[in-house]
Amino acid sequence: MPNWKEIDLQAKQWMKEAGEIIKSSLSRTLKIKTKSNPNDLVTEMDQAIEQFFIKNIKETYPGHRIIGEEGFGDKVTQLDGIVWLIDPIDGTVNFVHMQRNFAISIGIYEDGIGRIGLIYDVIRDELYHTIRGNGVFMNDLPLEQLDTVQVPEAIIGLNTTWVTKNTRINPAILGALVKDLRGTRSYGSAALEMASVAAGRLDGYITLRLAPWDFAAGKIMVEELGGYVTDLTGKSINLLGQNSVLVAKPGLYEEILKNYLNNGNW
Amino acid sequence: MPNWKEIDLQAKQWMKEAGEIIKSSLSRTLKIKTKSNPNDLVTEMDQAIEQFFIKNIKETYPGHRIIGEEGFGDKVTQLDGIVWLIDPIDGTVNFVHMQRNFAISIGIYEDGIGRIGLIYDVIRDELYHTIRGNGVFMNDLPLEQLDTVQVPEAIIGLNTTWVTKNTRINPAILGALVKDLRGTRSYGSAALEMASVAAGRLDGYITLRLAPWDFAAGKIMVEELGGYVTDLTGKSINLLGQNSVLVAKPGLYEEILKNYLNNGNW
Repeated sequence: MPNWKEIDLQAKQWMKEAGEIIKSSLSRTLKIKTKSNPNDLVTEMDQAIEQFFIKNIKETYPGHRIIGEEGFGDKVTQLDGIVWLIDPIDGTVNFVHMQRNFAISIGIYEDGIGRIGLIYDVIRDELYHTIRGNGVFMNDLPLEQLDTVQVPEAIIGLNTTWVTKNTRINPAILGALVKDLRGTRSYGSAALEMASVAAGRLDGYITLRLAPWDFAAGKIMVEELGGYVTDLTGKSINLLGQNSVLVAKPGLYEEILKNYLNNGNW
Repeated sequence: MPNWKEIDLQAKQWMKEAGEIIKSSLSRTLKIKTKSNPNDLVTEMDQAIEQFFIKNIKETYPGHRIIGEEGFGDKVTQLDGIVWLIDPIDGTVNFVHMQRNFAISIGIYEDGIGRIGLIYDVIRDELYHTIRGNGVFMNDLPLEQLDTVQVPEAIIGLNTTWVTKNTRINPAILGALVKDLRGTRSYGSAALEMASVAAGRLDGYITLRLAPWDFAAGKIMVEELGGYVTDLTGKSINLLGQNSVLVAKPGLYEEILKNYLNNGNW
């Protein structure tokens, strides 16, 4: 059986080292490449950090496979064995525009089951971490199991994109939810928004387009604390493709799915 | 002539003291009162901090008047003389739900002209401050004059409320802007969103409903750095009532007003 405690310690150490590399770069000018459109900025730093992790993982755990946002990992089409899902900088637009509100996100899965989740808010120096079955921590602070909450008392992460004209969902669907919620926030980093749910600061998070490296770590954390992470029809998340993602505390999850998303009948 | 430098130093000292009071309260349970609806939470801490400032200001500057969110200040109907506009905790919902992402905001005006602006992000320990004509600082770091930016490269603060059905603006108006922007964010604190514009992290901020204590400090900062703060029709902000507020860097401001808000013809 893999020694998860040792893998966790090793991954955390690499994360802190990667964080130092990122922080030391912030005083210098960032070189920005546009991948496909202005919303999809990629920096040399994203690529360097992904390669830093891949090199270390391949040397230390040659049997493990890697799915990385920047594409330097393996071609993974099946989830057997141990797979690392890595987003070197989740929230690249924030990284470029703000030099804050971004995170390194790593989820480690075994045969498709989440084992280790790590999200590192580099600038705040807040490391959210879990080994499945052993609770979730923010640095040394244990996070509490998630309370049940209902829509009128809930604040969720939701971007304006999904309540304006878009190609993925009728804006009226989530517009009705917005009217009934206490409020919405949008931080521009899925990993940090899911970490915020784990920490109880947000009650949920909804997006229509998310890649596995964006949610791989957060999913393990939120589920470890009794929350839910599925697609917007209530089905299991696909770890090998893009998904819509509904993250929510108990109660809120069922209410959103039934009363607003109509169990996916939209 | 008032000694603005001395008033600025004094106000900053009170702000730091108030920040300590707030921080020391966070380990204890917050007592929450609902003012009028769940979106309008008020805590004993809001009230205590406002009274802390009022007591100090009245003792030290008996001739100054005060407009405070919690209503313990003066009845101010004219802006002659020196008026302090105070929001003891801007982002009360965040304060209650997250224990972060809130700020103390103080704007000091003389005969309606902004003289001193102070926004204190208590948890990050980031104090944004300006004395009109002397630049804006975040702690000891001078902030740069705001660059010109256009819509496709801009990220603005905008809540989902204003692009879903609401009583103040047709959702399609700002929905068209959302489609063309690089992105939107929403932090739940007008003061911090305006401080983010001053710091260049956001390019603009739009809301349909803001009270003078929410924007009094941020307005002075953004204007000091060459940005614009008006209502959504392009008219001057009213410091004695509620306003819609359009905050933006040069270029972006004119473009939003002309191409999306149609100079207020909506």
